[in-house]
Amino acid sequence: MTIGMFESFVTRHWFSPTAKQIWSDEQTLQAWLDVEAALALAQADLGVIPMDAAPQIAEACDASRFDPDQLSRDIEYAQHPFVPVLKHLEKLCGDPAAGYIHWGATTQNIFDSASALQMRRTHHHVVAKLAHVEKVLSALAVEHRDTLQAGRTHGQHALPMTFGFKALGWLEEIRRDHQRLIARIEESFVANLGGAIGTFAAIGDKGRAVEAEMANRLGLLAAGLPMRSSFDRGADYINSLGLLAGTAERIARDVVFMQRTEIGELEEAFHMGKVGSSTMAQKRNPSTALMLISLCRLMQSRVTLAMGSMVRMDEGDSSATNITDVALPEIGILAASIAETLDRLLDGLVVHKHKMAANLGLTNGLIVSEAAMMQMSDQIGRHHAHELLYDAAQRTVHEGIPFLEAIRQHEMMSHLPAEQAINLDPAAYTGASGTLVDDLAG
Amino acid sequence: MTIGMFESFVTRHWFSPTAKQIWSDEQTLQAWLDVEAALALAQADLGVIPMDAAPQIAEACDASRFDPDQLSRDIEYAQHPFVPVLKHLEKLCGDPAAGYIHWGATTQNIFDSASALQMRRTHHHVVAKLAHVEKVLSALAVEHRDTLQAGRTHGQHALPMTFGFKALGWLEEIRRDHQRLIARIEESFVANLGGAIGTFAAIGDKGRAVEAEMANRLGLLAAGLPMRSSFDRGADYINSLGLLAGTAERIARDVVFMQRTEIGELEEAFHMGKVGSSTMAQKRNPSTALMLISLCRLMQSRVTLAMGSMVRMDEGDSSATNITDVALPEIGILAASIAETLDRLLDGLVVHKHKMAANLGLTNGLIVSEAAMMQMSDQIGRHHAHELLYDAAQRTVHEGIPFLEAIRQHEMMSHLPAEQAINLDPAAYTGASGTLVDDLAG
Amino acid sequence: MTIGMFESFVTRHWFSPTAKQIWSDEQTLQAWLDVEAALALAQADLGVIPMDAAPQIAEACDASRFDPDQLSRDIEYAQHPFVPVLKHLEKLCGDPAAGYIHWGATTQNIFDSASALQMRRTHHHVVAKLAHVEKVLSALAVEHRDTLQAGRTHGQHALPMTFGFKALGWLEEIRRDHQRLIARIEESFVANLGGAIGTFAAIGDKGRAVEAEMANRLGLLAAGLPMRSSFDRGADYINSLGLLAGTAERIARDVVFMQRTEIGELEEAFHMGKVGSSTMAQKRNPSTALMLISLCRLMQSRVTLAMGSMVRMDEGDSSATNITDVALPEIGILAASIAETLDRLLDGLVVHKHKMAANLGLTNGLIVSEAAMMQMSDQIGRHHAHELLYDAAQRTVHEGIPFLEAIRQHEMMSHLPAEQAINLDPAAYTGASGTLVDDLAG
Amino acid sequence: MTIGMFESFVTRHWFSPTAKQIWSDEQTLQAWLDVEAALALAQADLGVIPMDAAPQIAEACDASRFDPDQLSRDIEYAQHPFVPVLKHLEKLCGDPAAGYIHWGATTQNIFDSASALQMRRTHHHVVAKLAHVEKVLSALAVEHRDTLQAGRTHGQHALPMTFGFKALGWLEEIRRDHQRLIARIEESFVANLGGAIGTFAAIGDKGRAVEAEMANRLGLLAAGLPMRSSFDRGADYINSLGLLAGTAERIARDVVFMQRTEIGELEEAFHMGKVGSSTMAQKRNPSTALMLISLCRLMQSRVTLAMGSMVRMDEGDSSATNITDVALPEIGILAASIAETLDRLLDGLVVHKHKMAANLGLTNGLIVSEAAMMQMSDQIGRHHAHELLYDAAQRTVHEGIPFLEAIRQHEMMSHLPAEQAINLDPAAYTGASGTLVDDLAG
Repeated sequence: MTIGMFESFVTRHWFSPTAKQIWSDEQTLQAWLDVEAALALAQADLGVIPMDAAPQIAEACDASRFDPDQLSRDIEYAQHPFVPVLKHLEKLCGDPAAGYIHWGATTQNIFDSASALQMRRTHHHVVAKLAHVEKVLSALAVEHRDTLQAGRTHGQHALPMTFGFKALGWLEEIRRDHQRLIARIEESFVANLGGAIGTFAAIGDKGRAVEAEMANRLGLLAAGLPMRSSFDRGADYINSLGLLAGTAERIARDVVFMQRTEIGELEEAFHMGKVGSSTMAQKRNPSTALMLISLCRLMQSRVTLAMGSMVRMDEGDSSATNITDVALPEIGILAASIAETLDRLLDGLVVHKHKMAANLGLTNGLIVSEAAMMQMSDQIGRHHAHELLYDAAQRTVHEGIPFLEAIRQHEMMSHLPAEQAINLDPAAYTGASGTLVDDLAG
Repeated sequence: MTIGMFESFVTRHWFSPTAKQIWSDEQTLQAWLDVEAALALAQADLGVIPMDAAPQIAEACDASRFDPDQLSRDIEYAQHPFVPVLKHLEKLCGDPAAGYIHWGATTQNIFDSASALQMRRTHHHVVAKLAHVEKVLSALAVEHRDTLQAGRTHGQHALPMTFGFKALGWLEEIRRDHQRLIARIEESFVANLGGAIGTFAAIGDKGRAVEAEMANRLGLLAAGLPMRSSFDRGADYINSLGLLAGTAERIARDVVFMQRTEIGELEEAFHMGKVGSSTMAQKRNPSTALMLISLCRLMQSRVTLAMGSMVRMDEGDSSATNITDVALPEIGILAASIAETLDRLLDGLVVHKHKMAANLGLTNGLIVSEAAMMQMSDQIGRHHAHELLYDAAQRTVHEGIPFLEAIRQHEMMSHLPAEQAINLDPAAYTGASGTLVDDLAG
Repeated sequence: MTIGMFESFVTRHWFSPTAKQIWSDEQTLQAWLDVEAALALAQADLGVIPMDAAPQIAEACDASRFDPDQLSRDIEYAQHPFVPVLKHLEKLCGDPAAGYIHWGATTQNIFDSASALQMRRTHHHVVAKLAHVEKVLSALAVEHRDTLQAGRTHGQHALPMTFGFKALGWLEEIRRDHQRLIARIEESFVANLGGAIGTFAAIGDKGRAVEAEMANRLGLLAAGLPMRSSFDRGADYINSLGLLAGTAERIARDVVFMQRTEIGELEEAFHMGKVGSSTMAQKRNPSTALMLISLCRLMQSRVTLAMGSMVRMDEGDSSATNITDVALPEIGILAASIAETLDRLLDGLVVHKHKMAANLGLTNGLIVSEAAMMQMSDQIGRHHAHELLYDAAQRTVHEGIPFLEAIRQHEMMSHLPAEQAINLDPAAYTGASGTLVDDLAG
Repeated sequence: MTIGMFESFVTRHWFSPTAKQIWSDEQTLQAWLDVEAALALAQADLGVIPMDAAPQIAEACDASRFDPDQLSRDIEYAQHPFVPVLKHLEKLCGDPAAGYIHWGATTQNIFDSASALQMRRTHHHVVAKLAHVEKVLSALAVEHRDTLQAGRTHGQHALPMTFGFKALGWLEEIRRDHQRLIARIEESFVANLGGAIGTFAAIGDKGRAVEAEMANRLGLLAAGLPMRSSFDRGADYINSLGLLAGTAERIARDVVFMQRTEIGELEEAFHMGKVGSSTMAQKRNPSTALMLISLCRLMQSRVTLAMGSMVRMDEGDSSATNITDVALPEIGILAASIAETLDRLLDGLVVHKHKMAANLGLTNGLIVSEAAMMQMSDQIGRHHAHELLYDAAQRTVHEGIPFLEAIRQHEMMSHLPAEQAINLDPAAYTGASGTLVDDLAG
């Protein structure tokens, strides 16, 4: 029986195989055991537990020697997610080493440190994908530095621009998302020790040194003050993933629009055999972009959930940590899937320059009304020019006459010198589209 | 490799086995096929497809004859979630019947009708559990009709009440949740036909009759106007599940508080072998209540997600329906798990009457200050009485003298007849606690 | 100093003046006083307080006799939102009547009952607007019963339909929203008495009768069991407003798209003097639709907030009721503003039939590929027809040849009788668009 | 007529007066004008507009010379939030300067840059309050370095700790919130120019230099690439405010619990005249903490809303920016109100050491079961010790015998040396509570 979006035959391909691996039961269990091993080794180093107990413990920390189904039954019976794991680990170690397993730790220390490991692995995958996204966008921006396209605001043509400029806007936002993730991963996912309530009571004086050494062995920073009820650090990184999802959804929606039948400026990769509909043979849907939107919204629902789980009772609260225990794997898998899908979407994007040019020409010149205004402003002021052009634009809309003609016929034109040039060529009014690409896309 | 909360060895026991079955791939696929079969049979009845095609199709609609892993690979390749299913179904049927499969339908018609079937099955399970919850709560209310307990507001003792009254408050809210679900299931999850955009174009004149007959065969109401972009009906029921989750979380938090070490008024079921902590042997945590809180918050995150997916482009929008395709199973499983866990929690609840009584007595009489006020009000007015008691209460708090004494010593008492009785017995001030239980808990 | 969206000079016109009036401080205070008056009169009727106290109290319950700024200062000092109101009311009444004010009630009883009155007034305004929206949509559907338009799914042309059919889809969803609100208002917003914890302790035996009579005087249902920590009833109605917001946002987004420069099928009302941009004179933005989207999202944020406030501690919890105290006015005003703005948007909608027709013709016939499939299916089966048309569609897309020609040239056409008609007229494939309008739009 | 939580007489005192001032209409209008002035002066400097136009424009940029009510009416008529402001500014300037106002800018440039100014002012106020919160918490931690208190997990006593350690945990989280805000304000709220779509088309070659100079004059960083549809920067800071709200809510809930009638370990400031209830004279509610919780949840609803508004159509989308236009003032005011209320709450906190000690002693020694385990572990191993203590703890719970006695009577004790000391003094098992305070609270 298969249940849940990550494994269902209908949707499993939506999700990053790499990330699913990282967050699988097998690797979760191994991550727990890796933390237990690091803890034992650190404690032996520091003389907290006997020297010879540690290697024995470390050797037994091998997920392949555990039976997940048996663990599952024991967990249900004990109503505790980790004690059955410890019991089996004790058996594998044998006395006296068994007596030194999990020394001074509490379950949440292990779970939080392990998920920090898994989140870091996920992070490396995500940022690698983002680096590639940036290459693709950079190349798109440069290639289309001068590809004219209509800029749109509030759903209406606004000004001309180039598609390179648009791609640059995507690129800059992705770059910031990327930088934020890199800047925050270390501080956000740390190694925790501290025991039941964070006081290191069970370890004694060397508690903080053990945490530091354990963290060192795991390649993580140490929590320092390992309050189990503080989740602001993790939530901060997760919020940054939410920002990435916001960017990705925005790009995906841009693509869906630009692939609209009437717009036709972009098209996502197509291969013979890709099916748009069970009945409409013609359908070439932007299915990758649409799916990316879905992934991003799934992510946002988990971001809000994680944020809400910051509010924890007292010194520990499983009603909150239960939530992150199930939400972190979802967040990790969704993050990687968003990065992968965004990369696939952009890498396969087909640009239809002729359609961009055709759309730009649809409004009989109205799209450059601002250009006209700026040309007239020196003579009659920005505000009078706006009035003149407002009137002329209404005539163009209602009577269908070209905008330039409507302008020329306006009575206020008498205030302008007869030779006043009104240049309505869109290519002349893309502003810094090109130079911004030159300076920033590299 | 196992991934995802429903199947992970750590958390799988949180979730209703019944609901996991209902929303498993196997039953999802079968539900799709049941809809296809009902469609073919309805169309044969109404002369839309040949009489003898339908039984052949219906017979092939058997999930056990499909290979989910192969389907999964084909779905990924086609980037379409259903065409590979249809192709295999066609093979199973053989010509000419194969040509009449899925006649006039679109994929979303099948998915939506199938999930309606699954949601109804889930519903039956949920309401059965709620009916039991009501029995348990009704019995608790009656048994503890007169069990004195402190009523609390804003985190402070307010007035005396009985635990039966409290249980009645839970009961009434559950009853309303229950009634809402029953009242809405039929209209919320309906059978949809209508094809690509809801116009029944591919079926011709008989489209609406086919939808009605198909619905009839599936035991569902017909959509009537099967707009694929309308999800208000489904969202309405899901919101009602959100209300149930709100109630369940409230009850669970009440239990967690009343089981606090210092409060000790309630305790959830315990069995030897249940473990509270890997290091603190004494721990008897309200782990069922805490887990129920987690389930409720997981549900709320999905409710908001589903609500957001009401906003759909044009006549069909997979960016929104992808979301409900993965969220509906989660919502169904969470709903059943909440109902089951709530039932288990309440059914096993241990009530410590003596601790309720002890807590009620903690404040030296302050908890019945309102009673004193009402007794004095006839003589000196509600507002003067409030002033007198406010002063006296501060003395009780600061000087520790019994409230009755502080009252008697207040100068304003001279305005009251000397014989004025001030009864501070909490048992005399539970108001309608008992009669409300008598009238409403039955 | 003006602060807040309802009063700011920039945004105040977004919001319903009627609803702002209903939820103004003046009317909120009056609603509180109306509840106090009804309580006193009910209690006098039932012999709970002296007969002659009630009219005196009722007469003093006049908001114009209170100074909001003084109240504000007293509230801040007392850190209680209602005691200062009571104190002033006592002064206005004089003894002995003053002593019988607020008899047996708690502040939240008054606030909840008062907001029930205000929400009902808002409701009447909302449903009146929705009734008008339905008239407008019904007229649109009938007028455009046969106005051809491209139906779109997943951002791509799918099948032909009529604009009347589309309007009908909007209408049906609005009708359901409307019916839900009507069905739920009575049960969702009720009169509450019960005092500090809902036991009616301060009123004695007649408590429930007083609640019933007070409710009767206010034109509300009585809570029955007035648990202050139960908010499921109110949340249910608010969720239904969330569904209305979902519908309205969907319609608004449809309009924004159909007004896109390239689409041009719809246009919202324009008047000379309406400005789209401070610099682009040509801009005619769908500003009403865009603002409606914003209002809907503001609403959804409050719906989630209200839903979250269902979880309340014990028998009363101001951390939750503070939230509804400020969120209910926002919800009420947003609901009315959404209904008004939707009405204004739809009432002013301009339909460009020629542009709908032109867009329908853009794909060289591809939009009726399903029609072709259904025509061939009798001969070669639905699935073979899909294959043939899939190939032909790719040729039309890549080689630009008309779809009908691409079909005719396909090798599989040899399996069809030579005389097989392939009708690619969109007008012949609108399915039940017209008859659905005939049957449902009336 | 007063409407809205910031101005209502019931709730206005919840909100920071400083922040309400910053986000009032008056200061919003002035901030817009400040941006226009900076723009004109920057452009004059760089030779984009005539030298003498700029001072004239700058002088007219004075909010006191505008009539908000007239603006409001004009805005409603124009359906544009800024053109009426420009028209009045033009009148104030007179020609020819009027012609150079708003040169090359779009409305959103002005609004975004102005709200950046306002958010920075808010930020300074917030961080000043947080600095004070840190002082208060630091002092609390140091003062109560050795004040014994029960540490609690999952709603149950876990281990002893000190209240200083708890305060330190709050402090560390606030410090991180504080640092995040400081680290992000500059990059998150920047000055924007770029005009209609961000290409600087209307300014020409010097556009980017003008943006830089304008930013410089406003004390802001320049956007660099001023895409109007990128809101990730602002959303990042807002998310950090969400983290602050999460921390504040957690602390407030801790206080509410510790002030519970039964717990009595903490109490928020009380003054004679503060009223807990209109009828229960004894009530001393944690009303500040409860209100702080409400503020935090109001904030979270706006954080989610702002995050959602990252997804914007094309090069500009008022359906999203409308939302931030009204949400930013709410977010700013809520942030300041949270910081102020948290400061007031903590600054007035009364600590009841005797009650902390009394609660610690409630469990007959069970709270130090882990200490016992660690003492035995050297002899019999951690796991055997856990079993022994688990059994003994059940006896203490069920039979009421002291934990130490139950331990001594356990059969497994025979495996321990007779002289084995079992120290159950809580003061001996607070771990690093004190040294952590010494090292980190300074």
